[in-house]
Amino acid sequence: MTTRPPAEIGMSLDEVDTPALIIDLDAFERNLARLPERIAGSKVRLRPHAKTHKCPVIALQQIARGAVGVCVQKVGEAEAMVHGGVPDVLVTNEIVGRPKLRRLMALAPIARVGVCTDDKSQIDALEAAAGEAGVTMPVYVEVNMGGNRCGVEPGEPALNLARHAADQPHLSFAGLQAYHGSAQHLRGWEERRAAIAQAADKAGHTRELIEKNGLPCPVVTGAGTGSFEFETASGVYTELQCGSYIFMDADYGRNLDRDGALTKAFEPSLFVWATVMSRPAQERAIVDAGLKALAFDSGPPLVWDEPAAIYERASDEHGRLAVSTATNRLHIGDKIRLVPGHCDPTVNLYDWYVGIRRNRVEALWPITARGAVY
Amino acid sequence: MTTRPPAEIGMSLDEVDTPALIIDLDAFERNLARLPERIAGSKVRLRPHAKTHKCPVIALQQIARGAVGVCVQKVGEAEAMVHGGVPDVLVTNEIVGRPKLRRLMALAPIARVGVCTDDKSQIDALEAAAGEAGVTMPVYVEVNMGGNRCGVEPGEPALNLARHAADQPHLSFAGLQAYHGSAQHLRGWEERRAAIAQAADKAGHTRELIEKNGLPCPVVTGAGTGSFEFETASGVYTELQCGSYIFMDADYGRNLDRDGALTKAFEPSLFVWATVMSRPAQERAIVDAGLKALAFDSGPPLVWDEPAAIYERASDEHGRLAVSTATNRLHIGDKIRLVPGHCDPTVNLYDWYVGIRRNRVEALWPITARGAVY
Repeated sequence: MTTRPPAEIGMSLDEVDTPALIIDLDAFERNLARLPERIAGSKVRLRPHAKTHKCPVIALQQIARGAVGVCVQKVGEAEAMVHGGVPDVLVTNEIVGRPKLRRLMALAPIARVGVCTDDKSQIDALEAAAGEAGVTMPVYVEVNMGGNRCGVEPGEPALNLARHAADQPHLSFAGLQAYHGSAQHLRGWEERRAAIAQAADKAGHTRELIEKNGLPCPVVTGAGTGSFEFETASGVYTELQCGSYIFMDADYGRNLDRDGALTKAFEPSLFVWATVMSRPAQERAIVDAGLKALAFDSGPPLVWDEPAAIYERASDEHGRLAVSTATNRLHIGDKIRLVPGHCDPTVNLYDWYVGIRRNRVEALWPITARGAVY
Repeated sequence: MTTRPPAEIGMSLDEVDTPALIIDLDAFERNLARLPERIAGSKVRLRPHAKTHKCPVIALQQIARGAVGVCVQKVGEAEAMVHGGVPDVLVTNEIVGRPKLRRLMALAPIARVGVCTDDKSQIDALEAAAGEAGVTMPVYVEVNMGGNRCGVEPGEPALNLARHAADQPHLSFAGLQAYHGSAQHLRGWEERRAAIAQAADKAGHTRELIEKNGLPCPVVTGAGTGSFEFETASGVYTELQCGSYIFMDADYGRNLDRDGALTKAFEPSLFVWATVMSRPAQERAIVDAGLKALAFDSGPPLVWDEPAAIYERASDEHGRLAVSTATNRLHIGDKIRLVPGHCDPTVNLYDWYVGIRRNRVEALWPITARGAVY
């Protein structure tokens, strides 16, 4: 409800009030372009995950660079995307409960909307809701790739669900959701390669089994920023769901490339802009961004403008930086960029992106799916 | 911006869509009443911290039960409170930067607003802003009680700041901010008692020094839900800033009372209402509330309705529950209450409270300071 943006178009970056969620537009656009370049020549399609950015403005830029549509996790995110002009949205998640199913079906006349399942009872509820709304909905069977979250086991269990979906008059079986989340942050290139090889094997065998049983299985969708090159090369996956590549974050930045060096696949473009609000002792600086301005589930932020400083403790509205004696900035009133540990839940704390180019505010984009948890 | 509430007045709890932030109104009202009862007969005043609830509706209920006003941490929170009808707001934090100072001073003609400082440069900036706005603002010197966050050291450094504030034509020196945050979650009663005894000693000596130097120091403000009985009994503190007592959370629930048992001072009244969305294996249930629906900085939530289940892993939109074979609920579509690990940053994820009494939605309260980070 705090909808006032923390900046105005044309302001200098220094004038932007803090904490604010800022995008380095040049870095962001390089990331936007780089993923399509990296998969050019392959047959896989790009369907970026909008749970990362929650912003139709960004989704449309991804589509302008060749994406076929986006993924989301929640019906509220699907509503934000469809109402924001996105023509093709896949809900990569199970949707349970009649109110949500009615809302989901209401989007089907406006856009191509698909949904996942890992249980017969969900399929029955989807069929009832689609029938009531008079629409037909593509359904993807989610298969457990080893993350042990949602998803049926590969092989027969997936086949049974695919058949059940295909048997419904208002549903169509569209393919497999085969995302291997826990592989994304394995640090070594070889570890990630091996994990995705196993996933591709499971997904490939399941697709074969389904097709042998007379059901077309045109789509195998999955992959993330940490692993997409392996899914692309697998010959099994047909669609990539990378989300974080546009922003990167400190956690993805700890992944290693093939050469064993920290990944250079994409670059940080998302920052929390913070102010030093207290300098009570030589060894510490306190910034105005804590647990309500940054997500900490994947560790603290990096201090981008002052690498000698370490963000060592967060409380609700404060961050304590350990400041080496060598540091000559970080006076009261100084502003600094922090690279979030994890971009997705950090974005979910803000109502606006402040887009910066050459130290000027060039764009203010509303994060319309912020808080869209249901 | 997702302002649609997840419920309607009169619905049954079962009909409330998930995830939703629900308040058990009976438990909430017992907590609301219990703190004033616990300090009745003492001379300390209650100034609850609104950073916990971010909701003027709740602030006014606290004032109706005897609170003198509320505390906040951010100017945006102060705006939400003052515009929501709260007549007395203390910003228990340093405020840096001209835009924020102008906004702060703009509230002074509408309500009694105070602010903290731990540096001369902040006082100079406060004076300039107050002079420009033509108002006078009470200033509290924040003293480091041992948490090593903001705050000058006790004694001379605090005296010097108090003098500097008192010397300004548009500021008045109002007292000491002496909150000992890191004492709140010391588990043992005796540990907390000892920590607050030290804090009261520092604050008391500092007040004496300031008053010996001819400056009245009428207010010593601090204390939290974990320690308020010690500040109340100290003879030094004049004001309590407890916030979490209205809701409690799993982390505060791990504190021990004097008898060595888990605290019964207050009871959980705030829950995240979640749905089981997937049951892919005998041993696990997946709920629709993850990192964007709950704060995890103080550990995972407790599964209130099914203590045999353990919330063992969160991802952005999912929670994985380990389910013992003894559990006979937790089918797909079942809804359960989760007690957040930490209430404050959990509240900051939601736009609405859904107030429940006798399994009916009785109240929908907007969380108007959600996202008010600046």
